[in-house]
Amino acid sequence: MLVVMNVDATTEQIDAVCAAIRGLGFTPHPMPGAQRTAVCVTGNQGPVHRDVLASLPGVREVISVSKPYKLVSRETHAESTVVRVGGHAIGGGALQFIAGPCSVESEDRMMRIAEGVAALGVPFLRAGAYKPRTSPYAFQGLEQEGLRILDAVRRRFGLRIVTEVLSEESVEAVASVADVLQIGARNMQNFALLKKVARCANPVLLKRGASATVEEWLMAAEYLLSGGNRQVILCERGIRTFSDQTRNTLDVSAIAAVKALSHLPVVADPSHAAGRREFVAPLARAAVAAGADGLIIEAHFDPNSAWSDGAQTIDLDHLAAVIAQARAYERLHVEENASSAR
Amino acid sequence: MLVVMNVDATTEQIDAVCAAIRGLGFTPHPMPGAQRTAVCVTGNQGPVHRDVLASLPGVREVISVSKPYKLVSRETHAESTVVRVGGHAIGGGALQFIAGPCSVESEDRMMRIAEGVAALGVPFLRAGAYKPRTSPYAFQGLEQEGLRILDAVRRRFGLRIVTEVLSEESVEAVASVADVLQIGARNMQNFALLKKVARCANPVLLKRGASATVEEWLMAAEYLLSGGNRQVILCERGIRTFSDQTRNTLDVSAIAAVKALSHLPVVADPSHAAGRREFVAPLARAAVAAGADGLIIEAHFDPNSAWSDGAQTIDLDHLAAVIAQARAYERLHVEENASSAR
Amino acid sequence: MLVVMNVDATTEQIDAVCAAIRGLGFTPHPMPGAQRTAVCVTGNQGPVHRDVLASLPGVREVISVSKPYKLVSRETHAESTVVRVGGHAIGGGALQFIAGPCSVESEDRMMRIAEGVAALGVPFLRAGAYKPRTSPYAFQGLEQEGLRILDAVRRRFGLRIVTEVLSEESVEAVASVADVLQIGARNMQNFALLKKVARCANPVLLKRGASATVEEWLMAAEYLLSGGNRQVILCERGIRTFSDQTRNTLDVSAIAAVKALSHLPVVADPSHAAGRREFVAPLARAAVAAGADGLIIEAHFDPNSAWSDGAQTIDLDHLAAVIAQARAYERLHVEENASSAR
Amino acid sequence: MLVVMNVDATTEQIDAVCAAIRGLGFTPHPMPGAQRTAVCVTGNQGPVHRDVLASLPGVREVISVSKPYKLVSRETHAESTVVRVGGHAIGGGALQFIAGPCSVESEDRMMRIAEGVAALGVPFLRAGAYKPRTSPYAFQGLEQEGLRILDAVRRRFGLRIVTEVLSEESVEAVASVADVLQIGARNMQNFALLKKVARCANPVLLKRGASATVEEWLMAAEYLLSGGNRQVILCERGIRTFSDQTRNTLDVSAIAAVKALSHLPVVADPSHAAGRREFVAPLARAAVAAGADGLIIEAHFDPNSAWSDGAQTIDLDHLAAVIAQARAYERLHVEENASSAR
Repeated sequence: MLVVMNVDATTEQIDAVCAAIRGLGFTPHPMPGAQRTAVCVTGNQGPVHRDVLASLPGVREVISVSKPYKLVSRETHAESTVVRVGGHAIGGGALQFIAGPCSVESEDRMMRIAEGVAALGVPFLRAGAYKPRTSPYAFQGLEQEGLRILDAVRRRFGLRIVTEVLSEESVEAVASVADVLQIGARNMQNFALLKKVARCANPVLLKRGASATVEEWLMAAEYLLSGGNRQVILCERGIRTFSDQTRNTLDVSAIAAVKALSHLPVVADPSHAAGRREFVAPLARAAVAAGADGLIIEAHFDPNSAWSDGAQTIDLDHLAAVIAQARAYERLHVEENASSAR
Repeated sequence: MLVVMNVDATTEQIDAVCAAIRGLGFTPHPMPGAQRTAVCVTGNQGPVHRDVLASLPGVREVISVSKPYKLVSRETHAESTVVRVGGHAIGGGALQFIAGPCSVESEDRMMRIAEGVAALGVPFLRAGAYKPRTSPYAFQGLEQEGLRILDAVRRRFGLRIVTEVLSEESVEAVASVADVLQIGARNMQNFALLKKVARCANPVLLKRGASATVEEWLMAAEYLLSGGNRQVILCERGIRTFSDQTRNTLDVSAIAAVKALSHLPVVADPSHAAGRREFVAPLARAAVAAGADGLIIEAHFDPNSAWSDGAQTIDLDHLAAVIAQARAYERLHVEENASSAR
Repeated sequence: MLVVMNVDATTEQIDAVCAAIRGLGFTPHPMPGAQRTAVCVTGNQGPVHRDVLASLPGVREVISVSKPYKLVSRETHAESTVVRVGGHAIGGGALQFIAGPCSVESEDRMMRIAEGVAALGVPFLRAGAYKPRTSPYAFQGLEQEGLRILDAVRRRFGLRIVTEVLSEESVEAVASVADVLQIGARNMQNFALLKKVARCANPVLLKRGASATVEEWLMAAEYLLSGGNRQVILCERGIRTFSDQTRNTLDVSAIAAVKALSHLPVVADPSHAAGRREFVAPLARAAVAAGADGLIIEAHFDPNSAWSDGAQTIDLDHLAAVIAQARAYERLHVEENASSAR
Repeated sequence: MLVVMNVDATTEQIDAVCAAIRGLGFTPHPMPGAQRTAVCVTGNQGPVHRDVLASLPGVREVISVSKPYKLVSRETHAESTVVRVGGHAIGGGALQFIAGPCSVESEDRMMRIAEGVAALGVPFLRAGAYKPRTSPYAFQGLEQEGLRILDAVRRRFGLRIVTEVLSEESVEAVASVADVLQIGARNMQNFALLKKVARCANPVLLKRGASATVEEWLMAAEYLLSGGNRQVILCERGIRTFSDQTRNTLDVSAIAAVKALSHLPVVADPSHAAGRREFVAPLARAAVAAGADGLIIEAHFDPNSAWSDGAQTIDLDHLAAVIAQARAYERLHVEENASSAR
């Protein structure tokens, strides 16, 4: 940590800052500069102390040096984590796919979608039994009945189920059916939910909040890892910006950044980023190009009749094309790595 | 709703859109224009239908006309709501104050702060027993012991307690002590929590999410009202922008907009908006000037020793000055209204 | 400046960083920490060197300490600047007002507006002869004829003219009529224009760009001061955010921050921030409450017939009310300062 | 255009709106709905009228239907524009590359970079003789001498020069050397410059402003086309958001959107989006994946010694790798199109 003093800070003020640092159990190193003095602090630090130092007379600002996450950091765990679910891997080099409707609609419709998804060789089925909706008047999901249908689908097609849990009270129920527990963007900093899900044996897909920095996202993942669940998949799904051609702005830079900062796998959700069917394919390609370990895509046999998110849902032929494009990119990357390894 | 067709949309495409609208139970009104045709839709609409229409061939975009919130809207309830808590009113013209530390620290310290707050004539005490923290390694609040202390403080000084509930599982415990349940910015769209709090008898202070639009914020309040709790106080606490001199950007326009769109009272939190002590007073004044019904301010007898949020916490003399400034503004507004009423 | 090394940086890498720092003419101070080493750099620095250091092996990031602006900084010039225009002051304590239409429309209409503005005791008239418009098909201003009209208005009513210059080629023509040259938000980083205006004798009103940080805004002002023009008035006019109830988001925090960081006066433009007539008054009050030295307001005798920006333009009675409210706030601040000085 | 009335709008208010629409020369079509009345307006409209209608009593909002750009729109010009420069095409299917240093540094260094760029088969050289810098104290470019060097480089290596013009006064001088005139992000809405450049014979590369919507960007291009210059290349270079791992947030959605909305070619600048060398390759790939027609990349034989933007500049081997990756993607797209055409 670095405590930057005002240009006109007095010797007494600098001494007081040094004393405060010592009082907190750290070591101060005052560095007189041409314009002003800065005091370097060595030792391990917490946010509380930062605030205290920032408030002392003569202090202009306090700059943090150490990153606050530990278990998710690639600095402490260089090897990429591979999350394994029933023989299928997410992370570690190969591209993985998750597809399905926004919400579970009915057993018949769900079976039909699952059949189509399985036929494309996609091992993971996504569908929400519990839906977070901006409006209390919008369809909130089939809930328990939705879970029952998902379980039936899993048994019939052998698909692995990725489904959202949005309430502490339903964690057990959802975890009994889900192969992967999804935590949605709006709940990324629902710390009570994170703590509860951290104690589950299921892997977790953690979506980035629409206005979360990469650091906040990694800190949310740190809640899961420090709570005991190390099977975490990160999911970039677009951030809120002023740009208005898509529902959210897919932050491909964040995909590249997270791959560098953390050992956890990162998948991308081009459907929620786009908000419009026609942009799902280019955003899916862009995410893979930036380094995503997989894609989670909203797909339906008849998107126009979907009960929710229809405008961003693609049909199964469209899904087949997106997967083919992504796999072609993947082969290129593999060839390139092979050639650069020679 | 308005369905805008492409410039080159065919008559068949327009007919198909009209048929789809009729199929959904509404009435289409095609409006041929100089450049393109638009189809007006009359009747009540839901988001599902919007998506379906947006996906038809030849359709360029679908524009919504009706606002999605009802119970919180001033259009349906013209008179301003006044939330009453133990003889103290929030909303309805007079300015109200809520003050206290970020978190409950210990019984002694809490008593000392409460005494100072009460001495300033502030009827509401804020302090968190449960704290939402970005880092799992940061202080998470005294929890149950914090609630016990708050209860003791309330009994001794007659202050009304405003404290955050951040977990469904602790709603009952917090509600048994809190006079007002606070829902934090990160939980604004924690719909499971909103639904549970909607069934409480306690009034609710609902903070705006850091990246929530005004409409999303009002929809979150709609969850509370439609769930049965009409004692809702909105709280503007700054939004996330690129502007970096303060922790968040206090959105004073939103205060003015919400006062026009909704009948619910709106208070402002200049402490979290500022993130820095020195800006609490100007932001508090700006919020009152824009029409806020009250202020919620982090205050402590010794901010530099506060366990959390110390940098944005002001001491009790500073709090007295902020309240005096706000009350002077309030008197001006009252005089002005009196003079314009004559 | 602080060079933060990677956790696994080698001694050789740290030595190389120190050597590079010395090679640039500065002094390195390596600070070994618990987790990693940071190297403090003392001496004066430029951005080129920062990049060079950031690129060396083992370096994780380079953190700047010194602020890059000098002449505009309150650290180097503690006393508030007062810009004087024909006997009228902007800055230094008293509130100042600038009002008028978005654009010069015709001599008759301009005279009628000017008469109304002057009758309210407002000494500065704003109106654009040259208009920056998003669309090439929108009205671009009366240009030379507009300047002629402004000159006539000034002679008749003794008003001081604030008008925008948006082209290097018209700086002389505009400067021959304008008492204050306005540089619009879109031209805040038009450095060619800044350099040319810096050589004018006229005071300058420099609007903040819609996505400019406070630092970038102050650096744009630094172009004016370092180019020889010290009569600079800053103008906050709202920033671009996701918040959609107003045209822009008035950043009242920036007003407070700039008053602390710089000695230059700051006025606010509630009209462009609001984009809607009904929000001009609350935003004007909020800006004054946050510490603005004045207001620039779009006003017209008949806003509905205004040629541009009609929706955010207020009529003259409305203007009178806004001014009265602002002056009442000003009197409060003066009383408060007097009382705290006793 | 659609004029939405308040829920409680009176028949008189609706009649007045219809009369106002007729008075403006258009045709009103009142559409009574379940909740409120909306009035559709047919005929061609301008922004002035919109404001007037928005201000009438009983009107809640006015919604535009027609997009304001014409010449740049794919609706009016379905075929993709190909900009041809000395036998090299930008747009129309094949990927194109532009590379070089941020700024012209010296004749020797420039020759060395140009030789490297030409050796990679890149036909376009980028380098700034005039540099827009946030600080007046930063290196502002070699100016006239820089142009002379660029001319010498062009003659020697046959490279086509892409260089920025940032002042009206230097348009002629820059245009006499440049093959493509670059307009930088900060000048995207410098309308005086746009108008002057519109009259040049040179093709133009128009960067998107850091906070420009796609519509504003296309309107800036409309200034060029409507002013007579149809050889316009758009350039996405990242937008300003809260996301802080990169200098800007590359908006890949905007690339896909602009390809759909406009016939103009779009290139991407991964260097300015990234701000950090290590992210140039993934962002370059993502841009090509999203549909970019080319890449403009900052490259140098020794990035660490670059006079500006060194941290985001890559060396020539790195450039070769990025180009190879982009070309591999391009071949995939070509194969895919061939296969889908069969």
